[in-house]
Amino acid sequence: MLNAANNQPPHHVVIVGGGFGGLYAAQSLRKAPVKVTLIDKRNFHLFQPLLYQVATGGLSAGDISSPLRAVLSRHKNTQVLMGEVTDVDPKQKKIRLNDQELSYDTLIVATGVSHHYFGNEQWAEKAPGLKTVENALDIRRRVFLAFEAAEKETDPEKRRAWLNFVIVGGGPTGVELAGALAELAHNTLKDDFRSIDTSEAKILLLEGIDRVLPPYPPELSAKAQASLEDLGVTVQTSTLVTNIEDNLVTIRRGDQIEQIPSQTILWAAGMKASKMGEILSKATGAPCDRAGRVIVQPDLTIPDYPNIFVIGDLANFPHQYEDGKPLPGVAPVAMQEGQYVANLLKKRFKGETLPAFHYKDYGSLAVIGRHAAVVDFGFIKFSGFLAWLIWTFVHIFFLIEFDNKILVMIQWGWNYFTRKRGARLITNQDAAPPIEVEDQSNYRTPVKV
Amino acid sequence: MLNAANNQPPHHVVIVGGGFGGLYAAQSLRKAPVKVTLIDKRNFHLFQPLLYQVATGGLSAGDISSPLRAVLSRHKNTQVLMGEVTDVDPKQKKIRLNDQELSYDTLIVATGVSHHYFGNEQWAEKAPGLKTVENALDIRRRVFLAFEAAEKETDPEKRRAWLNFVIVGGGPTGVELAGALAELAHNTLKDDFRSIDTSEAKILLLEGIDRVLPPYPPELSAKAQASLEDLGVTVQTSTLVTNIEDNLVTIRRGDQIEQIPSQTILWAAGMKASKMGEILSKATGAPCDRAGRVIVQPDLTIPDYPNIFVIGDLANFPHQYEDGKPLPGVAPVAMQEGQYVANLLKKRFKGETLPAFHYKDYGSLAVIGRHAAVVDFGFIKFSGFLAWLIWTFVHIFFLIEFDNKILVMIQWGWNYFTRKRGARLITNQDAAPPIEVEDQSNYRTPVKV
Repeated sequence: MLNAANNQPPHHVVIVGGGFGGLYAAQSLRKAPVKVTLIDKRNFHLFQPLLYQVATGGLSAGDISSPLRAVLSRHKNTQVLMGEVTDVDPKQKKIRLNDQELSYDTLIVATGVSHHYFGNEQWAEKAPGLKTVENALDIRRRVFLAFEAAEKETDPEKRRAWLNFVIVGGGPTGVELAGALAELAHNTLKDDFRSIDTSEAKILLLEGIDRVLPPYPPELSAKAQASLEDLGVTVQTSTLVTNIEDNLVTIRRGDQIEQIPSQTILWAAGMKASKMGEILSKATGAPCDRAGRVIVQPDLTIPDYPNIFVIGDLANFPHQYEDGKPLPGVAPVAMQEGQYVANLLKKRFKGETLPAFHYKDYGSLAVIGRHAAVVDFGFIKFSGFLAWLIWTFVHIFFLIEFDNKILVMIQWGWNYFTRKRGARLITNQDAAPPIEVEDQSNYRTPVKV
Repeated sequence: MLNAANNQPPHHVVIVGGGFGGLYAAQSLRKAPVKVTLIDKRNFHLFQPLLYQVATGGLSAGDISSPLRAVLSRHKNTQVLMGEVTDVDPKQKKIRLNDQELSYDTLIVATGVSHHYFGNEQWAEKAPGLKTVENALDIRRRVFLAFEAAEKETDPEKRRAWLNFVIVGGGPTGVELAGALAELAHNTLKDDFRSIDTSEAKILLLEGIDRVLPPYPPELSAKAQASLEDLGVTVQTSTLVTNIEDNLVTIRRGDQIEQIPSQTILWAAGMKASKMGEILSKATGAPCDRAGRVIVQPDLTIPDYPNIFVIGDLANFPHQYEDGKPLPGVAPVAMQEGQYVANLLKKRFKGETLPAFHYKDYGSLAVIGRHAAVVDFGFIKFSGFLAWLIWTFVHIFFLIEFDNKILVMIQWGWNYFTRKRGARLITNQDAAPPIEVEDQSNYRTPVKV
């Protein structure tokens, strides 16, 4: 059955989720003797690490989106389906989509995580998170409307609230958002208004524990905070958000309670597994962690189902570090897991095996703002301009691999010739579903209530 | 009062509308001894001639939008206000915005036109027009969802309806949309699907009179139709749309009634003046034409109010051609009118006058598709690849002038250095208001019911 060298129909690999994990799995199976079906709710892969750039007007949504069909166009063994998986039958080896049913031989689940509000879901509309293109455009709208409103506002107190920007969560996403907002207010918009001085805008970054960028070594957290403060960001660590009402954030620092008037509150804290985790665990009894992520075996399968894999942010892989700490929810982990599963399958077809998955950590990157970033290569940690250059290079590199960004950017005017159309994302779908790719921040950020 | 060489507050010019007319007027007043206030509902100027590219996934919305504040940032005598004019008091020389009141010495109204449905407004949600960024993103969503639905659809008849694209109106917008859709289906998407052959998609262009591109000379209309047919577009002229229901267009050709099943119906016909025309005419008694456009004097003022100008698409200028035919609703007319009014004001300040406005027609351009366009320079008319090159050059040229496109495209990666953020448009505002800039098509297209 696993051997495609006979007359049986080819082994069918169904991949759910077109983020880094799912896409890399599909690409690595290009030459394998299998039929691949990639299912995603959206018709595009989102380069989520640059989503904060869309939220701050630096890039267009189309610039960081790649149509899944275009990326996999030349993979003749691969079909892309736009749809949402509603159920799994591991015994029958079937999955149900909203409008059809599919049989699989191997199932790879890579639907990622989305942000959440620790049981305060009512905060969602007041403090949008940054997971989907729609989130980013919503945040962009709020940010730029805030400056427009301030320009018109004559009451100094109300104007102040329009110029207060509060970001909850000091992980990479929060740090990058805060840095970009500070640049926007203090540089980009400086000369654009007549009644207000945008450099008076206050960008407040709140973090629950005692330092920003919790995933990073303390010395880099300190450097990151210093760079943020150079940019004009007010960083408050060990600060918990206890309430969010319209235009008002209540925070607690030790015993101090403070209320901050703000018209623009952004949420970069909190992570929960996508619904697929629950569906899968219900159907298979696979164990989940507190956030709902599926705890996987050393080979990324789930117990009792060697033909079901979970990869990317949705997977909790506790086998690498002594303390059982799961691998971080970053793109490189998802990519390597996707490639590992593809290679494992190829081995299986030959009746061979593969050692347990091991994440090669090439280091972490976070950008703080113009010319500033922090880099942790393990053997060396540094920050500043060189770090920023590396950050830029790495991101451009991965964008190029997805055939948009630089290429699309330079060649836009020639897309009649190249026949490329890089901006094929479908947005504003009813109740725009979260696109589920990795999130670099959040779940280490204990914003409690 | 018109002389700013004394201690009186500077002459205040209020411009309503940030399209080509309003923006060019503001830019031409940069050195004038006046205070300028530019009011627009949106915070960006939209390069509307390329909007069809956004609707077909060729460009991102941000690529053809320029933040008004950025464009006018260095115009220290100019303030940009985001707002909507609800009333005009020509006696008091005041205008009312939704949330404030402004006095003016000179008023320039350039709010353009939007499409309409000849009294069948219920067609609007079934057959969206192409005037705003939101329109374009809506059309893009419909177009690409149609292919996704067809890929899943097993019933051949339903699949056919998903692959039928109907465009109503054979003006430049309709022609450009049809050409781009044909390329999309027959080239761009060719290898992206597994169950359907996108080249079987049918692009149907309907035009009420006997030829496409009514503004152009008949020989170019014939060439345009031939090029469209080469691209695989089915062109039906002398065809009137009599009804649009869900997934069904009813057309009449002579005595023939036909019903066409289609899931994607696009509206490129019909033009009506923006509400500002009605407001102005109510307040001043200025005459309007059937479409609601304000019929202006030879100097672009309205009768009895030498300090109120109407320019761009909203203006009906009947003084140039013997037959009293108004100037076409195209960007160059709006630009020249904006510059004329600025120059007229500068003359007035010196107590001088300016001869009546005269539109210098440098020719018309319309693109049909890859490598094909038609050009009418008056003294010479031609089509094909050279015409397409000229079309591309002209559009890139004007985009560059607005400091986005090429520049932003090549330099996106460097926008930390350049401090530019080219994608600051605010979209998805509640009931996204139509951005009112010129529309190149439509009102010569007698789609009757």
